[in-house]
Amino acid sequence: MTAAILSIGTELTRGELVNGNACFLAERLTALGFNVVEHATVPDDTARIVGTLKRLGQQVRVIVCTGGLGPTSDDLTTAAVSSALGVPLLRHEASLAAIEERYRASKRVMPRLNLKQADFPQGASILPNAVGTAPGFSVTLGLARAFFLPGVPSEMQHLFAVHVVPAIEPLATRKSFQVHIRTFGLGESALAERLRDIDLGGARHVPGITIGYRASFPEVEVKVLAEHADLREARARAEQVGAEVRALLSDVAYGGKDDNYPGYVGGLLLRAGLRIAVAESCTGGLIGKLLTDAAGSSAYVLGGAVTYANSTKHRVLGVDKALLREHGAVSEEVARAMAEGVLRLTGAQIAVAVTGIAGPGGGTEQRPVGTVCFALARTTAETQSRTEYFPHDREHVRMRTAYSALRLVAGAAQQTLETLDAGPIEHVEPST
Amino acid sequence: MTAAILSIGTELTRGELVNGNACFLAERLTALGFNVVEHATVPDDTARIVGTLKRLGQQVRVIVCTGGLGPTSDDLTTAAVSSALGVPLLRHEASLAAIEERYRASKRVMPRLNLKQADFPQGASILPNAVGTAPGFSVTLGLARAFFLPGVPSEMQHLFAVHVVPAIEPLATRKSFQVHIRTFGLGESALAERLRDIDLGGARHVPGITIGYRASFPEVEVKVLAEHADLREARARAEQVGAEVRALLSDVAYGGKDDNYPGYVGGLLLRAGLRIAVAESCTGGLIGKLLTDAAGSSAYVLGGAVTYANSTKHRVLGVDKALLREHGAVSEEVARAMAEGVLRLTGAQIAVAVTGIAGPGGGTEQRPVGTVCFALARTTAETQSRTEYFPHDREHVRMRTAYSALRLVAGAAQQTLETLDAGPIEHVEPST
Repeated sequence: MTAAILSIGTELTRGELVNGNACFLAERLTALGFNVVEHATVPDDTARIVGTLKRLGQQVRVIVCTGGLGPTSDDLTTAAVSSALGVPLLRHEASLAAIEERYRASKRVMPRLNLKQADFPQGASILPNAVGTAPGFSVTLGLARAFFLPGVPSEMQHLFAVHVVPAIEPLATRKSFQVHIRTFGLGESALAERLRDIDLGGARHVPGITIGYRASFPEVEVKVLAEHADLREARARAEQVGAEVRALLSDVAYGGKDDNYPGYVGGLLLRAGLRIAVAESCTGGLIGKLLTDAAGSSAYVLGGAVTYANSTKHRVLGVDKALLREHGAVSEEVARAMAEGVLRLTGAQIAVAVTGIAGPGGGTEQRPVGTVCFALARTTAETQSRTEYFPHDREHVRMRTAYSALRLVAGAAQQTLETLDAGPIEHVEPST
Repeated sequence: MTAAILSIGTELTRGELVNGNACFLAERLTALGFNVVEHATVPDDTARIVGTLKRLGQQVRVIVCTGGLGPTSDDLTTAAVSSALGVPLLRHEASLAAIEERYRASKRVMPRLNLKQADFPQGASILPNAVGTAPGFSVTLGLARAFFLPGVPSEMQHLFAVHVVPAIEPLATRKSFQVHIRTFGLGESALAERLRDIDLGGARHVPGITIGYRASFPEVEVKVLAEHADLREARARAEQVGAEVRALLSDVAYGGKDDNYPGYVGGLLLRAGLRIAVAESCTGGLIGKLLTDAAGSSAYVLGGAVTYANSTKHRVLGVDKALLREHGAVSEEVARAMAEGVLRLTGAQIAVAVTGIAGPGGGTEQRPVGTVCFALARTTAETQSRTEYFPHDREHVRMRTAYSALRLVAGAAQQTLETLDAGPIEHVEPST
């Protein structure tokens, strides 16, 4: 069953406001099992509203329209619907009484402008509004049942839940179920390459399965959508293909819809009983920020140092001035000294350090912008270090650096967990 | 001159993502003087993309389209444009070489899937992409010049600025000029209340002036748009009303379109010759991250400590254990000790410290979630402290906390600048 969303308002077409209403409605309609085939946004312009309504009325079975039901001269939706249907506007006395009552209750006088909010196209079903002055309404328009709601998000959401959902739920024939697989470590095209056989065999040849990708840098979410008349069958198919996808991506897939990589790494630390400290130079605090985004992170984050200046590396973490002079601040030697310094200083069991050139300035031939040195120090293993190179802009270099640091931590925490799973610890081997 | 925006992507029609790209493009096109008459969003579905392109090609003169240029099987835009034009896809060797070079530079092998990103409809103009793998392109489609850009916001914005603006700027008949005023400290409705007289007198009664607001939490941008056939007149009007707006918002307006508050604060520190250190508890590194987002911030950021755990407050910053026990970690006493500790440790001239309860857990009756204590320490003045309360979720509490800390820093830096402006310093008064 197809649906479309129509948003009306010049503030939207001019880009003064992000269209959150369309996103809300699209998500709800999809969850109800509708195939949302278009969002259209038009200005407060009668001809454009009429034209779009008539067009959508020939193309879909449900239209949800928001905006333009207010009392001012640029609120044109109701009149445009009358015009599209070729019927007059009629005053609805019960709605007028309800609007007057809202004003009386808040000890205000109803401006005459509000009278028009009690006018509706002949034949419309009124959708009373318990949370604002503008009632909604619905009409049949071509092949579609069309619902008109105010643009104020709280009123729109209320009317949608109370009036629209009960009316359209029986219409949704095809059901859908989506499995979300969060990944970090491969780009969108490399993921798609890995999944090509499933994608070609599934998305193309098994009807009703679609594999999608959503990048939220530097993570990528893989989405497996199954559609079927029977919701249980849709769910079973989505979960089956989802399990195949997870198996093919086992080295980079770490969680589901509501997960994020820093939270996943935090979970590993918690399970491994490790408390972490961080020493950051070029990321300036980003790694600590990401680790502490999760509620409850105080169970495994001790804190650390942001040692942006060389003097701070020396004063706070005790990095030897000679080391800084000899190898430069962006060197594995300094990264190791930072990691070991913050481990000692905080009493953590694991510490990660980064020092690099985020740019745009500061690069040299030998160490161009995007060069980052990492070190991982632990109480139970030798310190590891490595150098990576991210040829991107400052923001990307910093985010990639933070995520690479988290991946180092994840690897170490996984080793600890494997050791714990293997039984009583007798001797922990350095793991470099 | 009319324009339309077409967004392509099932993640949008399903409501998995708010359509920020459409808002960005609408704002820019409006600012250039275009009348944006429609935003359309369609799924990754060839027939719907083709149908919408053909329809818009008959209705507007400029179409800007985003999304569906990636390498995966659900990226269908380029093939759909070929189909709408009835021309074949041709491989563009220079684009292929550029994509291969990007992979080589980052020492990766180009997956075969990326080959399709070098295919374009016959006759298209290629828009090289310096910041990602997907080049854009433009074609003439019906009455319209149509531009196709990747959906990744940073790449889309880059290609729009570099290729689309120069191509369409001469087409805009009605000229417009927009003044952007960045603010921090008041919400959208409080700003609108302050500007009510201007807005009623200007936006409603002076033709061609529109005042808009765009929230990017916790900052709000006020936009003054002037439209006039003569660009110089539009500019003069926008700047006149812009100056009135700035005067009414003098306590919260800090900059223009490309500014952000952390960068503004950094600029004050630089001019005042102050180097800063930060001691963060509940923000976990966010303040340091924000201060170092700006390129060149090493000129005024020394670094600091993330002291998430009480033990770290004591071990790294020397906060007295008795103080922690007696007043609790979330107290002005501890905030002051943190600020003074990090000032001493790093040798900075100014230091800010925050300690609070970001939630959702950890609140008490006396110190509910959202309670945050701040302290500001300087080498030239007494330490200041204060407590604020932000009744929001974890993410909001942390961001509001970081911005409030930056505001404390801004106030101190401004005092220093005023002192410097006042002439040779004889004696600096403590300024609490």
